[in-house]
Amino acid sequence: MTQVDPTRMANAIRGLSMDAVEKAKSGHPGLPMGAADIATVLFTQFLKFDTQAPAWPDRDRFVLSAGHGSMLLYSLLFLTGNPDMTLDQLKQFRQLGSLTPGHPENFHTKGIETTTGPLGQGISTAVGMALAEKMLAAEFGKKIVDHHTYVLASDGDLMEGVSQEAIAMAGHWKLNKLIVLYDDNGISIDGPTSIADSVDQVKRFKSAGWAAEKIDGQDQAAITAAITRAKKSNKPTLIACRTTIGYGAPHKAGTAKVHGEALGADELKAAKENLGISLEPFSVPDDVLQAWRAAGSRGAAARQEWEARIGELGSRKRAEFERRVRHERPASLAKALKAHKKGLLENPLNVATRKSSEAAIEAIAAAMPMEFLAGSADLTGSNNNKAKSATAFSAKTPKGRFVHYGIREHGMCAAMNGIFLHGGFAPNGATFLVFTDYARPAMRIAALMGAGVVYVMTHDSIGLGEDGPTHQPVEHLAALRAIPNMRVFRPCDSIEVAECWELALNRVDGPTVLALTRQNLPQLRSSANENPCQHGAYELVAAQGEAKATLFASGSEVEIAVAAQKQLAERGIPTRVVSVPSLELLLAQPEAKRAAIIGKTPVKVAIEAAVRWGWDAVIGQDGEFIGMHSFGASAPAKDLYKHFGITAEAAVNAVLKRVS
Amino acid sequence: MTQVDPTRMANAIRGLSMDAVEKAKSGHPGLPMGAADIATVLFTQFLKFDTQAPAWPDRDRFVLSAGHGSMLLYSLLFLTGNPDMTLDQLKQFRQLGSLTPGHPENFHTKGIETTTGPLGQGISTAVGMALAEKMLAAEFGKKIVDHHTYVLASDGDLMEGVSQEAIAMAGHWKLNKLIVLYDDNGISIDGPTSIADSVDQVKRFKSAGWAAEKIDGQDQAAITAAITRAKKSNKPTLIACRTTIGYGAPHKAGTAKVHGEALGADELKAAKENLGISLEPFSVPDDVLQAWRAAGSRGAAARQEWEARIGELGSRKRAEFERRVRHERPASLAKALKAHKKGLLENPLNVATRKSSEAAIEAIAAAMPMEFLAGSADLTGSNNNKAKSATAFSAKTPKGRFVHYGIREHGMCAAMNGIFLHGGFAPNGATFLVFTDYARPAMRIAALMGAGVVYVMTHDSIGLGEDGPTHQPVEHLAALRAIPNMRVFRPCDSIEVAECWELALNRVDGPTVLALTRQNLPQLRSSANENPCQHGAYELVAAQGEAKATLFASGSEVEIAVAAQKQLAERGIPTRVVSVPSLELLLAQPEAKRAAIIGKTPVKVAIEAAVRWGWDAVIGQDGEFIGMHSFGASAPAKDLYKHFGITAEAAVNAVLKRVS
Repeated sequence: MTQVDPTRMANAIRGLSMDAVEKAKSGHPGLPMGAADIATVLFTQFLKFDTQAPAWPDRDRFVLSAGHGSMLLYSLLFLTGNPDMTLDQLKQFRQLGSLTPGHPENFHTKGIETTTGPLGQGISTAVGMALAEKMLAAEFGKKIVDHHTYVLASDGDLMEGVSQEAIAMAGHWKLNKLIVLYDDNGISIDGPTSIADSVDQVKRFKSAGWAAEKIDGQDQAAITAAITRAKKSNKPTLIACRTTIGYGAPHKAGTAKVHGEALGADELKAAKENLGISLEPFSVPDDVLQAWRAAGSRGAAARQEWEARIGELGSRKRAEFERRVRHERPASLAKALKAHKKGLLENPLNVATRKSSEAAIEAIAAAMPMEFLAGSADLTGSNNNKAKSATAFSAKTPKGRFVHYGIREHGMCAAMNGIFLHGGFAPNGATFLVFTDYARPAMRIAALMGAGVVYVMTHDSIGLGEDGPTHQPVEHLAALRAIPNMRVFRPCDSIEVAECWELALNRVDGPTVLALTRQNLPQLRSSANENPCQHGAYELVAAQGEAKATLFASGSEVEIAVAAQKQLAERGIPTRVVSVPSLELLLAQPEAKRAAIIGKTPVKVAIEAAVRWGWDAVIGQDGEFIGMHSFGASAPAKDLYKHFGITAEAAVNAVLKRVS
Repeated sequence: MTQVDPTRMANAIRGLSMDAVEKAKSGHPGLPMGAADIATVLFTQFLKFDTQAPAWPDRDRFVLSAGHGSMLLYSLLFLTGNPDMTLDQLKQFRQLGSLTPGHPENFHTKGIETTTGPLGQGISTAVGMALAEKMLAAEFGKKIVDHHTYVLASDGDLMEGVSQEAIAMAGHWKLNKLIVLYDDNGISIDGPTSIADSVDQVKRFKSAGWAAEKIDGQDQAAITAAITRAKKSNKPTLIACRTTIGYGAPHKAGTAKVHGEALGADELKAAKENLGISLEPFSVPDDVLQAWRAAGSRGAAARQEWEARIGELGSRKRAEFERRVRHERPASLAKALKAHKKGLLENPLNVATRKSSEAAIEAIAAAMPMEFLAGSADLTGSNNNKAKSATAFSAKTPKGRFVHYGIREHGMCAAMNGIFLHGGFAPNGATFLVFTDYARPAMRIAALMGAGVVYVMTHDSIGLGEDGPTHQPVEHLAALRAIPNMRVFRPCDSIEVAECWELALNRVDGPTVLALTRQNLPQLRSSANENPCQHGAYELVAAQGEAKATLFASGSEVEIAVAAQKQLAERGIPTRVVSVPSLELLLAQPEAKRAAIIGKTPVKVAIEAAVRWGWDAVIGQDGEFIGMHSFGASAPAKDLYKHFGITAEAAVNAVLKRVS
């Protein structure tokens, strides 16, 4: 392919990485220097990509799970000729607005598959990508979908617990096109990994159903041979590549000193001399650059052949494939939900919102059966997000569209990120709301990178009853609402559930939490022409006469607000009820819209079986709040609502206190 | 020991568990029925405990990691004669105020070692208990500290990622007195575990440095033999006990149906007949009860011998041991911090609060060198929580008082729970604030059960700079403040740091987060007689004249508020600055105190490099907020503060806009 010594190609990565970190006086040179040989072999011999078309659907995916080694990725993008990644960008490493931030940001820089940095996320996201590939290949055929997912992972990625969830899933699902290259350099920030770890990773991965072996990660021939073997395996593969962190730096290589800071002028010079690289910063010899550019266009032919194959697919199937990877919803979805809402008006559904969510899902899954990809972390029968028509996905049934993720909330949410990023699916995953705590790092990255995933989070308050405080969310609504770009919906009845599902599925630039009840609720809405949930809140019940008070509530507490409103009306106190399915969406409305919804009644009361955080923005500092001020307790739900004073009577009294 | 057939003893557990779940119409009978033989062997032959003295320091610990099987534990407490656990309590299973909540709550029911239910927590907490045992034994000798930690874990515990972090630590530390009995029943909520899992747990644990074997978990002789072997091992041991979930239930045993709901009258009757148990609810044959009571007092002699041994320890050492396990701080602590603060007034320390925390730690560690137990998730040099005098803990250096937890934030925080619960130490653990997301389930349980642990969370805002949005917390202060009983301190200078450390260490009924900066800050305080941080907030700078505005700020933004105050004073606008090291503690003050601190100036501005959630309670809906409205970005810190408009100029303008 090229006559250039591949070690010189690897050294180009090393040189650029050293220079960029040195210029920024900040960053991580050690990984790019140690893993340069691995990257060179992968990108010049194996990775199927076309640098001119970084989003080509059938490309191989490369995930730099060890995101701190971002200069490896930026160097590769520049060397292989990514149009945006100029030398100037490398010189702007870690500066405001550059395409080269401290950690790779896929929403910011083209050619990057996912956002990494928080350890363990990349490898777990990659499992979702490989899962999506397997599913989509089974549906559209290997002529259209046939690619590998490669991961470069560090010690830290494998120490993080989420990696166990991820590798257990990948092994169980036999995701043989997932290949993890483990940069086994034996060094972490605190020093040799031996001060904190003695896990035999090869044995560990084998115990999870993987193929695994150890090689010399500085030996390009060994790397070639190992990847070749991995591609033939019927299991996912771990290749533990023994490398030297900061390879080439004469004094600091192999030590923690080269992990997370610039080498310093002297060591940098010595390293370059040692490696035989020009001392000129950011310089790459012409022949080396040419060889890299050739590697970058190596996949162009494969892409063109793929373009031809998809042309042969038939226009309907092709349009379907292209729509799916664009995350565009089918027209049938809106129709199905409209009909579903109409049906609810005719036959009200007075059930738990997890159950009305199930009913909405039946309508949705009928409209988009192959792309609506649900799953649960072992609470399928409680989360109610499995459509009757959906069959379980397994290694042998790749067309199944319900995923049993096991008791792995974090792994599930990370995998959903990968499924979304891969394209082709609208993933949703379910557990109890309280267990969002287990998945927060993956949920935060979804919000940061704008992944359109849906979290079906049932048992959303003390209303779950007897399981007690370990299972009762009280702070979780607040904690989730606080995440930028996270949408949290807590619908109050079956109509709102359908509306929130519609908003969630049409939100392809960020994640959505649906907080749903365990306990039954009445259907409160009597019209369904519009979707008022899109504004976060709306007046559900108007006051009879000039309103003296407004009761704001979400989810299961809207029923309480409506009951209180009725009692107040009977006492001659006209009161409004505002349903607030999404508090943060209400607060994000334009000033006039928000003010109109909130209104100006002298008394404002908020009712939510959760902590007060956030509600002051609606009801004011002096507003009355009826909710939780502590953890919950174990008892039947009705006893708990009474015990914690979240009742219509409490709401009535709060208003009376203020009105009189 | 007893002539009663041990299978009848196990059946007593089964009968009580079935009856209690049946009466509550809620709960999990499957695990207690399947694991009854394991529990019988452990409690009658091995577990060193005295039911009359459930808090005896040298008792063996038993952790029911599979907390949903709580009736196993409650049955055992009743059968062994725990004074509080009457038959009536079993009949009140899962009812408000009973000692028998849905999941075990150690803060509520005596004889329970830790709160479990969220899967993976128990096994990980147990690692901390075993670690504390090893450390304390090395310090006080095996005559005083010599006990085992036993765990009963389920499939779910081992699927959760945190279990990997925990077992990797336990294997590395060679915690050979930790014995995990895995209730390998092959069933989870969704059905056979084989639908979601194919990990070979024995191989997995071996890869982490454990001894591990499989046995028949319904064979009491096999269980006895395996625990006997485990006690002799020089490694922690996993005993995978193959059991039948719902053992004894003729139709439902071995299926998911018996996991999480009552058997139903017919199946219950059939199960009792099958097992040869009386059909009378909650009945235990006299001889069986007597045998169980004997098991409960079996350890009384051992305890008395231990009491004698501690009597021989010497009064000073004995007092020290008893003070330590009571979580009482030494008098030297207050003195040391007082002297430290005096020193700061004489020689101001204008450094990052992570560095002034390091200075405070030097003073603290000198006062309590053996009980101040710090550690970091591989960011020791960045978190600055290692005292110079502290040496690293390892299997060979058990007197080391700094723990390299590895890149395992969740495992670290769960282990700290266990360390605290075990007694003898004031544990603190460190990472970047953003990575509290990884540890939230363990932090929440710490808050729920009132564990006095300290989280040293550095790099607490966009002020960390170049690492970018994946590493920059913006919502984390809000998300942590929302957790009931969690204390979050964000000190603004070296004096506040010392004060917050003092409050944190003296808080032994709940956890404390210390949010600390990466970037340098000036020492702002000029007096240190009292500790105003105890009220959450206080006036740091008084207005010159009648105040027209108040600037509220925390941590690194107090410096900005002080600069703005000066500029406003120059423009003739008298302004106060209120430092708010703990927003939620301010809000928890008595009404009058809170009102006095907040004051009544017409203009209120809050400055915090984080999201607004929570601040409306101080500044009102119409207050000005200068902070973050999105994720951060990668750039030097100064550029970011300017880019996101968190500057003294912005604060001045916000006030001017309102004043004019």
